[in-house]
Amino acid sequence: MIKTIDWKENRVVMIDQRKLPWEEIYVVCSEYPQVIEAIRTMVIRGAPAIGIAAAMGAALGAQTLAPDNPEEFRKGFQGICREIGAARPTAVNLTWALERMSTTMEGRLSGGMKGVQKALIREAARMLAEDVAINKRMGQAGQEVIRDGDTVLTHCNAGALATGGYGTALGVIRAAKAAGKKVRVFADETRPFLQGTRLTAWELVRDHIPVTLITDNMAGYFMKKGMIDRVIVGADRIAANGDAANKIGTYSVAVLARAHRIPFYVAAPCSTIDPRIKSGEAIPIEERDPREVTHWRDLRIAPEGISVLNPAFDVTPHGYITGIITETGVLQPPFTRSIREALRGAGMRERGEGRSKREAKNVAR
Amino acid sequence: MIKTIDWKENRVVMIDQRKLPWEEIYVVCSEYPQVIEAIRTMVIRGAPAIGIAAAMGAALGAQTLAPDNPEEFRKGFQGICREIGAARPTAVNLTWALERMSTTMEGRLSGGMKGVQKALIREAARMLAEDVAINKRMGQAGQEVIRDGDTVLTHCNAGALATGGYGTALGVIRAAKAAGKKVRVFADETRPFLQGTRLTAWELVRDHIPVTLITDNMAGYFMKKGMIDRVIVGADRIAANGDAANKIGTYSVAVLARAHRIPFYVAAPCSTIDPRIKSGEAIPIEERDPREVTHWRDLRIAPEGISVLNPAFDVTPHGYITGIITETGVLQPPFTRSIREALRGAGMRERGEGRSKREAKNVAR
Repeated sequence: MIKTIDWKENRVVMIDQRKLPWEEIYVVCSEYPQVIEAIRTMVIRGAPAIGIAAAMGAALGAQTLAPDNPEEFRKGFQGICREIGAARPTAVNLTWALERMSTTMEGRLSGGMKGVQKALIREAARMLAEDVAINKRMGQAGQEVIRDGDTVLTHCNAGALATGGYGTALGVIRAAKAAGKKVRVFADETRPFLQGTRLTAWELVRDHIPVTLITDNMAGYFMKKGMIDRVIVGADRIAANGDAANKIGTYSVAVLARAHRIPFYVAAPCSTIDPRIKSGEAIPIEERDPREVTHWRDLRIAPEGISVLNPAFDVTPHGYITGIITETGVLQPPFTRSIREALRGAGMRERGEGRSKREAKNVAR
Repeated sequence: MIKTIDWKENRVVMIDQRKLPWEEIYVVCSEYPQVIEAIRTMVIRGAPAIGIAAAMGAALGAQTLAPDNPEEFRKGFQGICREIGAARPTAVNLTWALERMSTTMEGRLSGGMKGVQKALIREAARMLAEDVAINKRMGQAGQEVIRDGDTVLTHCNAGALATGGYGTALGVIRAAKAAGKKVRVFADETRPFLQGTRLTAWELVRDHIPVTLITDNMAGYFMKKGMIDRVIVGADRIAANGDAANKIGTYSVAVLARAHRIPFYVAAPCSTIDPRIKSGEAIPIEERDPREVTHWRDLRIAPEGISVLNPAFDVTPHGYITGIITETGVLQPPFTRSIREALRGAGMRERGEGRSKREAKNVAR
């Protein structure tokens, strides 16, 4: 299995996703600013993976906090979390993970600094293990939407590399294959960062899932030819009404899917849902460096003197979404209600109330 | 003015569009197989430009035909035209230009070989001059659809580089600017060959027309934000019912434009209309080398083991098209009728019947 991120001997180790598929190089962070830099420069990307990186970064930062004074420790830790939280704006898992780390910190603060530091490491590791378990539940629930023989179009990378492992959208595809279904994938190359070409194709080839690579502008052509049966994508933040922010281009795919009557699914854990945001209009969209569009590595491919816009995400309004695949099941419209119910269920599970013994064991591992 | 292609001292000279915007290098063809290779490898591309290249290639080939025997000359010339005609399948201008050259050949065949050879060179040169004049008329007619202050999205390159000069879609934009309108352009980068990034952006920067470069998958995002007022694209072949083949991704842009109620125009000369083809379904779509998608120059960017599809064009059904801008005016739906009328008008003009003195002078120059 692909190891996207791990905690090893007081260091955070991540596969460098900028270097795939050419090289399998690992970035080792021994200080939390290195984790921030890794998130910012997309050594690691994908909402769930960013969440885990943030948690591990916070755990790393906590080790350097010297004062054996609860109030000062809290202040220091909050400062670190604020810094990490500012690394990228769109994926809500970043905030979600840091809030969970803060809760852990508060719960242990009275027991001495060494205890808090250890608890934070344990909590970050637990979030990684939980994420994999959640993705497997999501895959199990979501694979129902794939029929034997379907061709699924996906955009960007919502795979093992975007998560602690197994993946969201690709997890659903993996689960469909594991359930004995024949499934083929069309992968949009996903400009400008080429997550489809470099990451999704790489993952699927490793798993022997047939994958056809296309440029982003070909999706409509193949839909019109009747060659796409389902679209499944990930998400970086889902509003309370089901509007979903995901990699730039997802919205165009959703409009095209609607025009061709192709079911369009979003696969994401409940931690990607931001119930505080009522609709997608309020989701902040990151604008990234124009160089991603104007340059190929160090070579400028666009002439001097042009303007460039490089929004990294767009929002697909809930009306375009057939279902939201989460670890609690496939949410159906109206999403405002199904999301509310799912979050209530997920909250119960988090507190261990609705959790089966087997799940609890998975999480504890 | 950009010189896309020219006839100089019994040679065909073309700017190498694979090398732009890095280098302005010219490819010089002294034998017709070099012209075929230039068309095939996209040294020159764009339907009208391909037509001119084909005509010049045929004129070049005719110079090498030795026999002073009409029947053998005809056979030799037809063979050359067949070879050139097979260089690329989608743009009908290739066939159109070669048929026109054949007509010239037939008309002069009885007057001796030297005379035919000279007449073919003159005819090819005339087609270049005519194309520029046609584009200017098209621009004049088409600029009416652009309002002062509009932002126009274009896909691929339908500019001077795709034609003898001035351009089709970009000609319309140039004419709007010349008419005193403020116009801004959004250019799709147009994967995999990056005609938008490399060619459209380069042309517009040279002409001081404000241009913003975006990746193909961003078009929907900016339409939804209300930042696109019009879409204008070129075409490689238009069927009798108005269905238009153009660079891959055009169909997706048309569907997006419809979803956002943005007028969508196709700009192309009458020579791009193929009245023998009833609907777009019958237009042959070229499938190009997967390397265009899997590689960046010599570097493989996609992992081994994936499938790739690389259709170079798609067809936008006439129902998505607001108007077809030609040198005879802006054709309105129902296109079956307006196209028939336009072709009748263009045929008259070609025979000089409906041509004004000024136009006749332009063409003769």
